[in-house]
Amino acid sequence: MSRVLLTGAGGNLGKVVRENLAGVYDTLRVTDLIEMAPAGSGEEVVQCDLSDAEAVMQLVEGCDAIMHLGGISLENTFDSILNANIRGTYNIYEAARKHGVKRVMFASSNHVTGFHKRETRLDATSEMRPDSIYGVSKGFGELLARYYFDQFGIETACVRIGYSFEKPLTRRMMAIWLSFDDFTDLAKRVIAADRVGFAVVYGMSNNKETWWDNSLTSYLGWQPKDSSEQFANDPNITSEVNDPNDPAVKYQGGAWVAAGHFEDQK
Amino acid sequence: MSRVLLTGAGGNLGKVVRENLAGVYDTLRVTDLIEMAPAGSGEEVVQCDLSDAEAVMQLVEGCDAIMHLGGISLENTFDSILNANIRGTYNIYEAARKHGVKRVMFASSNHVTGFHKRETRLDATSEMRPDSIYGVSKGFGELLARYYFDQFGIETACVRIGYSFEKPLTRRMMAIWLSFDDFTDLAKRVIAADRVGFAVVYGMSNNKETWWDNSLTSYLGWQPKDSSEQFANDPNITSEVNDPNDPAVKYQGGAWVAAGHFEDQK
Amino acid sequence: MSRVLLTGAGGNLGKVVRENLAGVYDTLRVTDLIEMAPAGSGEEVVQCDLSDAEAVMQLVEGCDAIMHLGGISLENTFDSILNANIRGTYNIYEAARKHGVKRVMFASSNHVTGFHKRETRLDATSEMRPDSIYGVSKGFGELLARYYFDQFGIETACVRIGYSFEKPLTRRMMAIWLSFDDFTDLAKRVIAADRVGFAVVYGMSNNKETWWDNSLTSYLGWQPKDSSEQFANDPNITSEVNDPNDPAVKYQGGAWVAAGHFEDQK
Amino acid sequence: MSRVLLTGAGGNLGKVVRENLAGVYDTLRVTDLIEMAPAGSGEEVVQCDLSDAEAVMQLVEGCDAIMHLGGISLENTFDSILNANIRGTYNIYEAARKHGVKRVMFASSNHVTGFHKRETRLDATSEMRPDSIYGVSKGFGELLARYYFDQFGIETACVRIGYSFEKPLTRRMMAIWLSFDDFTDLAKRVIAADRVGFAVVYGMSNNKETWWDNSLTSYLGWQPKDSSEQFANDPNITSEVNDPNDPAVKYQGGAWVAAGHFEDQK
Amino acid sequence: MSRVLLTGAGGNLGKVVRENLAGVYDTLRVTDLIEMAPAGSGEEVVQCDLSDAEAVMQLVEGCDAIMHLGGISLENTFDSILNANIRGTYNIYEAARKHGVKRVMFASSNHVTGFHKRETRLDATSEMRPDSIYGVSKGFGELLARYYFDQFGIETACVRIGYSFEKPLTRRMMAIWLSFDDFTDLAKRVIAADRVGFAVVYGMSNNKETWWDNSLTSYLGWQPKDSSEQFANDPNITSEVNDPNDPAVKYQGGAWVAAGHFEDQK
Amino acid sequence: MSRVLLTGAGGNLGKVVRENLAGVYDTLRVTDLIEMAPAGSGEEVVQCDLSDAEAVMQLVEGCDAIMHLGGISLENTFDSILNANIRGTYNIYEAARKHGVKRVMFASSNHVTGFHKRETRLDATSEMRPDSIYGVSKGFGELLARYYFDQFGIETACVRIGYSFEKPLTRRMMAIWLSFDDFTDLAKRVIAADRVGFAVVYGMSNNKETWWDNSLTSYLGWQPKDSSEQFANDPNITSEVNDPNDPAVKYQGGAWVAAGHFEDQK
Repeated sequence: MSRVLLTGAGGNLGKVVRENLAGVYDTLRVTDLIEMAPAGSGEEVVQCDLSDAEAVMQLVEGCDAIMHLGGISLENTFDSILNANIRGTYNIYEAARKHGVKRVMFASSNHVTGFHKRETRLDATSEMRPDSIYGVSKGFGELLARYYFDQFGIETACVRIGYSFEKPLTRRMMAIWLSFDDFTDLAKRVIAADRVGFAVVYGMSNNKETWWDNSLTSYLGWQPKDSSEQFANDPNITSEVNDPNDPAVKYQGGAWVAAGHFEDQK
Repeated sequence: MSRVLLTGAGGNLGKVVRENLAGVYDTLRVTDLIEMAPAGSGEEVVQCDLSDAEAVMQLVEGCDAIMHLGGISLENTFDSILNANIRGTYNIYEAARKHGVKRVMFASSNHVTGFHKRETRLDATSEMRPDSIYGVSKGFGELLARYYFDQFGIETACVRIGYSFEKPLTRRMMAIWLSFDDFTDLAKRVIAADRVGFAVVYGMSNNKETWWDNSLTSYLGWQPKDSSEQFANDPNITSEVNDPNDPAVKYQGGAWVAAGHFEDQK
Repeated sequence: MSRVLLTGAGGNLGKVVRENLAGVYDTLRVTDLIEMAPAGSGEEVVQCDLSDAEAVMQLVEGCDAIMHLGGISLENTFDSILNANIRGTYNIYEAARKHGVKRVMFASSNHVTGFHKRETRLDATSEMRPDSIYGVSKGFGELLARYYFDQFGIETACVRIGYSFEKPLTRRMMAIWLSFDDFTDLAKRVIAADRVGFAVVYGMSNNKETWWDNSLTSYLGWQPKDSSEQFANDPNITSEVNDPNDPAVKYQGGAWVAAGHFEDQK
Repeated sequence: MSRVLLTGAGGNLGKVVRENLAGVYDTLRVTDLIEMAPAGSGEEVVQCDLSDAEAVMQLVEGCDAIMHLGGISLENTFDSILNANIRGTYNIYEAARKHGVKRVMFASSNHVTGFHKRETRLDATSEMRPDSIYGVSKGFGELLARYYFDQFGIETACVRIGYSFEKPLTRRMMAIWLSFDDFTDLAKRVIAADRVGFAVVYGMSNNKETWWDNSLTSYLGWQPKDSSEQFANDPNITSEVNDPNDPAVKYQGGAWVAAGHFEDQK
Repeated sequence: MSRVLLTGAGGNLGKVVRENLAGVYDTLRVTDLIEMAPAGSGEEVVQCDLSDAEAVMQLVEGCDAIMHLGGISLENTFDSILNANIRGTYNIYEAARKHGVKRVMFASSNHVTGFHKRETRLDATSEMRPDSIYGVSKGFGELLARYYFDQFGIETACVRIGYSFEKPLTRRMMAIWLSFDDFTDLAKRVIAADRVGFAVVYGMSNNKETWWDNSLTSYLGWQPKDSSEQFANDPNITSEVNDPNDPAVKYQGGAWVAAGHFEDQK
Repeated sequence: MSRVLLTGAGGNLGKVVRENLAGVYDTLRVTDLIEMAPAGSGEEVVQCDLSDAEAVMQLVEGCDAIMHLGGISLENTFDSILNANIRGTYNIYEAARKHGVKRVMFASSNHVTGFHKRETRLDATSEMRPDSIYGVSKGFGELLARYYFDQFGIETACVRIGYSFEKPLTRRMMAIWLSFDDFTDLAKRVIAADRVGFAVVYGMSNNKETWWDNSLTSYLGWQPKDSSEQFANDPNITSEVNDPNDPAVKYQGGAWVAAGHFEDQK
């Protein structure tokens, strides 16, 4: 792959991925709605609103593959999510189709399946049960990716990211934590694999407690190396008190489930 | 149920449903973007653009249940589908939530699963494989309905309608034909059932050749009575010539699959 | 089969079965804890407490097959259920083992699976989720039957009876109604079949709305002929008002689920 | 279809199928190893040893579809079965490939799955458990058909025929009886269907007691009309005495299972 | 958890668990029918017959969670098992309900599923196939736990213990061996977990040969650390000679299956 | 086991297995169609054509178990494969039956399932989809083994070998590589296991990228120790360029799928 596009490169996770990918591809084109650090060696920096179809068409031109992390990553108003995640993801796929890009790594979310109970083990065939409008928008992205694969042969790995930050803050996050390095390794494997097809991968490190089963995508050869167990004795985490019937504990989506509709959170 | 809202009441199927429901409920409030026949006895007629959130909020007020047939029912530009089907369906559910409406019959489509091969038998748990942007938008509606049920307790039966017109025109339509009467019967059962939960029902009559299995929703008690077999000797149908590997034959979505992207159809 | 034993012959269902079986076998030995009508032609009447192991040993002697309807058929104190259903069923199977009886029709109950939601379709492999101590005791009977088949080759068909009375009284009973004739037909088939193995059959007539799937036991050739649809216009039934989230509506066990523990019902 | 080839046309079932197909296709080419009735109108009669590759190559030339009933239909020596069923079926598929024939109806057998217990419900995905060398040879034919579909696009419906004679002789045959008319109807549907893909269909009439589930091939639209129930009161059948643990009763293959190896039957 | 109740504390396994739990909870209340070692620091010792409902009611008062190891752990007369395991377990759950105890670790047994063949891989959804009256009584306990969770919200992890002794004695025990430390770790996790729901866990160490799959309960985060491989070269084990069709080898229950009914063992 | 027969001992894999088994059994009888190295200590060398039934009958006499690696291991003419693999394997099982040999390790092949896509995870229950006549012949062998187990109690482990050579040559082979040592360990376990039943095992080492799931045969206790990862930096492998839609990449059978029919390869 000579040129890979990374969207959402100005976000929390995107910034780390950008750093980790330095020198991996001939050219890394990074983009975000917000301002980003200037281009380093082998980088192209393009500021772009993904909801602008024409801008995205230009953005994608000349790329060989796309890591699509862009969009809104928290619950928000329907209009915001509609523009950033629904329209934005459509624009990416349409541009990919028109420019002949054949492979995408799509940053989906565990919130696509957040209304499953914690004691339910999920795999790629589990029913989508979103816990938020945000989760619905990510489910839309997965359906769109499925369509673009079936109809146009564009391969996508949808990564249902758990919690990809420096370290887990709660016991729930202990189960779904995804280290930056493990995520980067997965993203690189998706780009490099002989064949991806249409894949759904749960993005979690090699944690002790797990809710998800990635064996259906063992053909990608991804074996996460980190574990949240290194944080097991963090006093903030271990002292947490929980009620098993609190929605934030009962359901995989955690506090997102408990929060209810964004309109009511204001 | 004293007042039931019927959206899409000016469309081909909506007009028949409206007629069939005359006198069934205390009040039938019918709506469409286009002009409709004037209100009959027990009817309220409200012209409304479903993509207009405030208008929909008013439209839903005072209703006890919704039959949501509105929106675009063919492949179209992304913007058109985004407004009519994605924004429109969101507006319906938000209005239902705010006004305490607890039950919806959502007219989904077989195009949510159109990329399954004809020899694959589907049921409510089958993977969504849309064959069009339209199909993706209906899949979005189903995910939204799933979320509004899990989070807010609004029950929905998603009906993946096959081909609901006067009579089938092709051999493919023989398999997926849904008579107007069978559809109306299903819609009434969804409204009347003790409990619907979140259901996915395939909308087909009691045809001889079938691709879909509705046994998972046998609790609704719906048993279609008509059959496309009555049209089996129609010369236009029987003389059709087919190649088993033609996408329009190979996949359940039929000509929709073969048509490719709407942008390319112009 | 020359002599068939019918337990619970003095109960509501047992009395009808006894009548229906008149003349079917060389000898029908009927038993109950309570007094029964005197023996007719081809009948033997033996009053017996099934919790009395020695009495049961005598009762079973000389029989070729057993229809085991005896025991308590409503929620009750643990001690009552322990004696009648747990001890009683054990005594039946031990006597069968010692006297070489090789086939049993065991009247189990839908309350073995009453905590499944109404929208969940069950078959013989579904998880047992009892809705009462009574339901647990019937589940115990099924496990015991499984053991006596695996270890001693005694074949049993466990019939999870829905509601087998003259007619349904509620909309829930419409779905699970089992006519006396359909039950008798099933019981006779179980006795007459070439091979029963260990079977779990849901006892319902050919109703329109159903929750259960008996296709796994299609080898028994039982096809119920009656339907609760004949009562569909009964005003007492149709006028019922329901809340989909009321436990009596939400769960298959109906009012049993809503009733809670027997200790609290006093 | 202008010319259809029917192999095994001199056998018990083949003779009836030949009669039933009179006038259905422009030309029916019938073949067998043994002498057959002379050609009627629209018929071509070709005597042929299916184990002779060159003869088969000529036989198939000019045909549009094949109904392959030929070969040995009872247990026999390995050499006989190797030649007639394994070599013979290979020759048919190779000739089809070379002459561009794209559809085959292959007469497989219930003896491919005869070692399943009677209380096990089978469908097209059930494990093959042959009860004889004959059954293994039919399984070989199905694997070959699967390969020729995946690699060369030749569609096959494998029909696992139960017992297709004038009438059932035993209670086991009551469950697996396939009337001549139902079989002919199936064969015609396989030839006429828009798409067959690779299908496995159990060949039984609409009997009361069944072991097999054909819902996975409901897309073929085959609904058998006859039933063995018409023979239920045949005194020879009803008087049969069975032991549930006799291999001939316990397993679906019946007497075939009980017979053991052909070498030991001599 | 300030006070945890341990039943069966005088038994082989209970004694080790008691030792291992020293100092883990504020108070460990230990109980058994037989005499136990006197109370150490942070311990309360209560001798109690679990079949005595009133005594159990007192026993449970003031506890926050229960590890229920009590009862008979070998095949025995029906009466003995009825009292100790069926009545005893009921008494525990009723006391838990009345005193508001919300979590139980229930020592079930591999003998609940002992009649599965050794080559059948089991998980929490596998059919219960007890190999003994003891196994049936443990199955009863699991059904009871399921009921108390569904109806009263009392969470239970049923641990189907393999062979939890110092070391395995046979090759069968190599596969199902559970070290004392691994069991204790599991018990502690069950008590500490944010949410248990209703869980079925197979109790085995990290052995090389395994029959069971615990991935469905990976949310408990239990990863056994010991392995029976350390005993692989024990001459008593390795020299064992086996017949694959001996019931003690063929079935998972081993010698229990081969032993037959307790009445016949006397 | 005092005498074990190894067929195909002159082949690439057979030679290594022969060396690895030196001294493991009292006697290792090795055989092949071609000349082999002279007998070492504890060895018997018998040259034999497996398609010669009488010769095989003599060959098997006196053996306790068979490792059947013999036959053709590449695509070839139908006649060659018929003799070597179909007739040859039948001769082996017939000789085993007549001489009372009760256990076989059968070298099957990943080409039995080569027409599954690379992104499909397979286990022992996956549909057989051969990618070649060779693959069909191995499928025949598995069906034959299933029959000889069900009917005659001869246990077989079918090992679907991936690529068992010194080292992988392509990225596809990285996923399916099976080291000589891992294969030998598996073969020894199959012979030594208490019970094998009828098993299907995928023969691959502990590679990073995998397509197959052996958990259903975890009861054999086989845990491969080697990994293809040691060759990950081989420049020939890493520089490979692939098209995801090339049949050799898309399907598990790799180049075998792409090669088409042997007749066309000449």
